[in-house]
Amino acid sequence: MSQPSLATVRGVAELRAQVRAWKAAGQSVALIPTMGALHEGHLSLIRLGRQRADRTVASIFVNPKQFAPHEDFDAYPRGEAHDAELLASVGCDLLYAPTGAAMYAPGFATAIQVGGVSEPLEGAARPQFFGGVATVVAKLLIQAEPDVAVFGEKDYQQLRVIQRLARDLDLPVEILGAPTARDADGVALSSRNAYLTPAERAAAVALPRALAEAARAVAAGGRVDSVEAAAVTALAAAGFGPIDYVEVREAGDLSRLGPGPIGAASARILAAAKLGKTRLIDNMAVG
Amino acid sequence: MSQPSLATVRGVAELRAQVRAWKAAGQSVALIPTMGALHEGHLSLIRLGRQRADRTVASIFVNPKQFAPHEDFDAYPRGEAHDAELLASVGCDLLYAPTGAAMYAPGFATAIQVGGVSEPLEGAARPQFFGGVATVVAKLLIQAEPDVAVFGEKDYQQLRVIQRLARDLDLPVEILGAPTARDADGVALSSRNAYLTPAERAAAVALPRALAEAARAVAAGGRVDSVEAAAVTALAAAGFGPIDYVEVREAGDLSRLGPGPIGAASARILAAAKLGKTRLIDNMAVG
Repeated sequence: MSQPSLATVRGVAELRAQVRAWKAAGQSVALIPTMGALHEGHLSLIRLGRQRADRTVASIFVNPKQFAPHEDFDAYPRGEAHDAELLASVGCDLLYAPTGAAMYAPGFATAIQVGGVSEPLEGAARPQFFGGVATVVAKLLIQAEPDVAVFGEKDYQQLRVIQRLARDLDLPVEILGAPTARDADGVALSSRNAYLTPAERAAAVALPRALAEAARAVAAGGRVDSVEAAAVTALAAAGFGPIDYVEVREAGDLSRLGPGPIGAASARILAAAKLGKTRLIDNMAVG
Repeated sequence: MSQPSLATVRGVAELRAQVRAWKAAGQSVALIPTMGALHEGHLSLIRLGRQRADRTVASIFVNPKQFAPHEDFDAYPRGEAHDAELLASVGCDLLYAPTGAAMYAPGFATAIQVGGVSEPLEGAARPQFFGGVATVVAKLLIQAEPDVAVFGEKDYQQLRVIQRLARDLDLPVEILGAPTARDADGVALSSRNAYLTPAERAAAVALPRALAEAARAVAAGGRVDSVEAAAVTALAAAGFGPIDYVEVREAGDLSRLGPGPIGAASARILAAAKLGKTRLIDNMAVG
């Protein structure tokens, strides 16, 4: 069955003309920024965007500024034609796929840093990451002028950084988080899962299992330090390593909780670890 | 004679409601960001705004983020009622005067840096300055959503930094520079001139004279190094000191020119020096 084709724009002027035309007609607009390599997780963001706005725009841009030199920028999976088919299949209205030269013209010299919530966890493991994310997301939000923008809770710290960024810069947009989409065995969907061998993919189930068990134990009044240690042990036993972090944090600003029980705090448990050559991240709400 | 009163808003929501109402009625909007302590120089920016847009909004906000701890944030002159009268007298339509708490709410954590053009001159003398300027100007532009924004060439490097910022972040605004307003003797108008003693004010004329002579000499084919040295000598003889810089730079990106003649380059000569306790800056086009 043939899919409907998806309108695609590559320049800011074209993008704004379409978004402003929709707004002038009284329609609200949702932006879903992605790096492509789309899977069901991304499509769930499009669906949430469609629930919350009249029109949805997906962007695909593999942002070089959020990769360190040793990371997988060149190898990151790309396939715009297939991505466009998937977006059309769930009713996305427009694809914005800018070129690198259009996003970062010669002489580009501006960097945005979000302190605090960006500093631990992924910020400590990947020092360049959130600066690159904040800069490109600010640009995309300013370019597209959406009413709402949707980001996955899979990248929970990123969601919190972007909410802080939008509030601090007074961007006229609501930042929505969408629940993590998971395979039947509980493994969070991720473009980087494509790097896993079949054996690694089977072992990956230990990550959501360890987090779910840890979240249950913390919610039941367990000590943060012993729960985190048990999760690390479980991940190592399943073949993960090195383990960057397994940490229980306050759900809003990601400040540290523990080492004892969390009491009435709203909490999130977050983890990052390598499985073979692939670095996986996941997180879950506590309680 | 009584002045017309000036509508004043203190919150982003009120500001946006007014600007969007004007835009919905087909009117264009100019923003003129200031730190108050208004003088004829600021009023010339309002007049340029009125020439280029249907409505003009002036903002007054003494931005703590662009002052270092030893600088004059607390002493910086403030007088909103008088400023509002001056704005009304030249036909400004709206004053936006946010509180510090509204601009930087608890938990504020975002910083914007513009590399390159912000690094020499004022950036070297005041390491905190342009980061603070870029952050507050980005916020004001995002808050007010103007079609054009006007900045004085008196702060020439700041103008270039803001043009770079607006281009890099894709802000949908045209950044206009307005010629420096000067007293009859040539001294550039500045809120900080209020700090000068009468004797210092008389001596201050050496700054525009030295720059005008230097600009003439460079345009006539003189060597940059000897022209700069002569200007430094003239300023020191007039009682200026220490002299932070007197430099001939490329007019667009402020890269270094010289030490020989500049040939066909488009150039600006910029200076900063203390006169007693007051730090003065000025600049002029070459040719």
